[in-house]
Amino acid sequence: MTRFSQAVGILTAGGEFRVWSVIVSIFGDLAREPEDEISGALLSALTERLGIRPEAVRVALHRLRKDGWITTRKHGRSGHYRLSPNARETSRNARERIYADENRKTDRWHLLILPPMPQSERHDREKPWLASGYASLVPGVMLGAGAAPVQSGNFTFEGEVAEIPAWVKSANAPTELIAGYARLETSLASIGTPLLDAPLEIAALRVLVIHQWRRLLLRHPALPDRFYPPEWREAACRQRVVELLKHLPRPSLAELENAASQGG
Amino acid sequence: MTRFSQAVGILTAGGEFRVWSVIVSIFGDLAREPEDEISGALLSALTERLGIRPEAVRVALHRLRKDGWITTRKHGRSGHYRLSPNARETSRNARERIYADENRKTDRWHLLILPPMPQSERHDREKPWLASGYASLVPGVMLGAGAAPVQSGNFTFEGEVAEIPAWVKSANAPTELIAGYARLETSLASIGTPLLDAPLEIAALRVLVIHQWRRLLLRHPALPDRFYPPEWREAACRQRVVELLKHLPRPSLAELENAASQGG
Repeated sequence: MTRFSQAVGILTAGGEFRVWSVIVSIFGDLAREPEDEISGALLSALTERLGIRPEAVRVALHRLRKDGWITTRKHGRSGHYRLSPNARETSRNARERIYADENRKTDRWHLLILPPMPQSERHDREKPWLASGYASLVPGVMLGAGAAPVQSGNFTFEGEVAEIPAWVKSANAPTELIAGYARLETSLASIGTPLLDAPLEIAALRVLVIHQWRRLLLRHPALPDRFYPPEWREAACRQRVVELLKHLPRPSLAELENAASQGG
Repeated sequence: MTRFSQAVGILTAGGEFRVWSVIVSIFGDLAREPEDEISGALLSALTERLGIRPEAVRVALHRLRKDGWITTRKHGRSGHYRLSPNARETSRNARERIYADENRKTDRWHLLILPPMPQSERHDREKPWLASGYASLVPGVMLGAGAAPVQSGNFTFEGEVAEIPAWVKSANAPTELIAGYARLETSLASIGTPLLDAPLEIAALRVLVIHQWRRLLLRHPALPDRFYPPEWREAACRQRVVELLKHLPRPSLAELENAASQGG
């Protein structure tokens, strides 16, 4: 077993992939610019190395095209894919968080307090705020970074967090995310520092590391470490991800297409 | 009808007095220092001028003594009353707010957010905070002036209020207080600027003005005007109270005792 397949085995031991989501990770890492395209051949080469069946890739590409995430260009018998403008923007925003060297350090926050209302209605009112990165503190009270929005119709308050009691830290840290980060930390430690030469292996492992990291990261709001209980291993994982990516420098798309066209 | 009795008539037109509460106002205005004593004769002279029956005064004094608000000293056949140390402190704290030239102008606030809990339990948890001057914004969220308490077990946040939507202003202004201030503003305007000579009349009218003012003022938290809807007349009442008290300079206790002992 090569160091590469060992590393892939460790990082995928946790369970099933959502293939469309892995493809999102591939584009987010390797094809960021408007002119960046990935060929069907390169996509196959990368996903194959992650143990994903070609049929699953076809289904996922169909879904991503239907959702407006990617666009396709046919060139002879082969397809070429790129991110749609919307997807590129979403991807760019997420990237700031995924690739940052450190967790957010903001000291300036605001609270947004909704008027009292029935629970079902409140869920609807909270949804867009939470989707845009607000953290829910208690029902109807959300924490956002920086200055408060203007004229939102809610009570808003700008300043600094003074006390973060244990019950807030627990609420910020769902059990499955605590467990997820703990597992990821162990996996990332187990794979050591693989010295790889083949650009396709470097790219595939990069994408896999990023994918497993962002799967957890983007499921919770961006809050500094002090908002979480001590068993929250986000910062440890981030440190290890940053370190690994340094040892797996991103190959250029040209290099990868070239390798893929030569069958790896 | 004298200008004095006209003024008393206007200010008491609203309805019943709670006599013990009027006596609290008398002590709060006229007998603030540890050594300050009010004789039974002076109390009778003042309350009589406000149309309160001697029997009601006796009942109220009994209650205030039982509650530890006043202490009594017998001197021959007559009683002498003073505030208990606890009452003096409570009275001093309230005085800062009652006699201030302007409403609170604080810009620095903190929010105190309780953990989610059943409503009945929450009421119990909120009670002491509200009693100590916090404003309730929505269930479980309270606003306090200045720095946050240390280690309260709640989520606390320090800063400035950014947006105060109409629903918060309405919640801060119960209908009966809006109406109360509007009535008081009208009454205070109607009595004009009575020029009184008799120290007992000056003192009685002072006490009555203060009493009607603090009855409303101490029923809501001290918040700046911008926290209230436009129909909230607290600031207008305060301005008029300050003006009236300037025209009714507080007589000394000695002067008043002297007048009372001479039958007014």
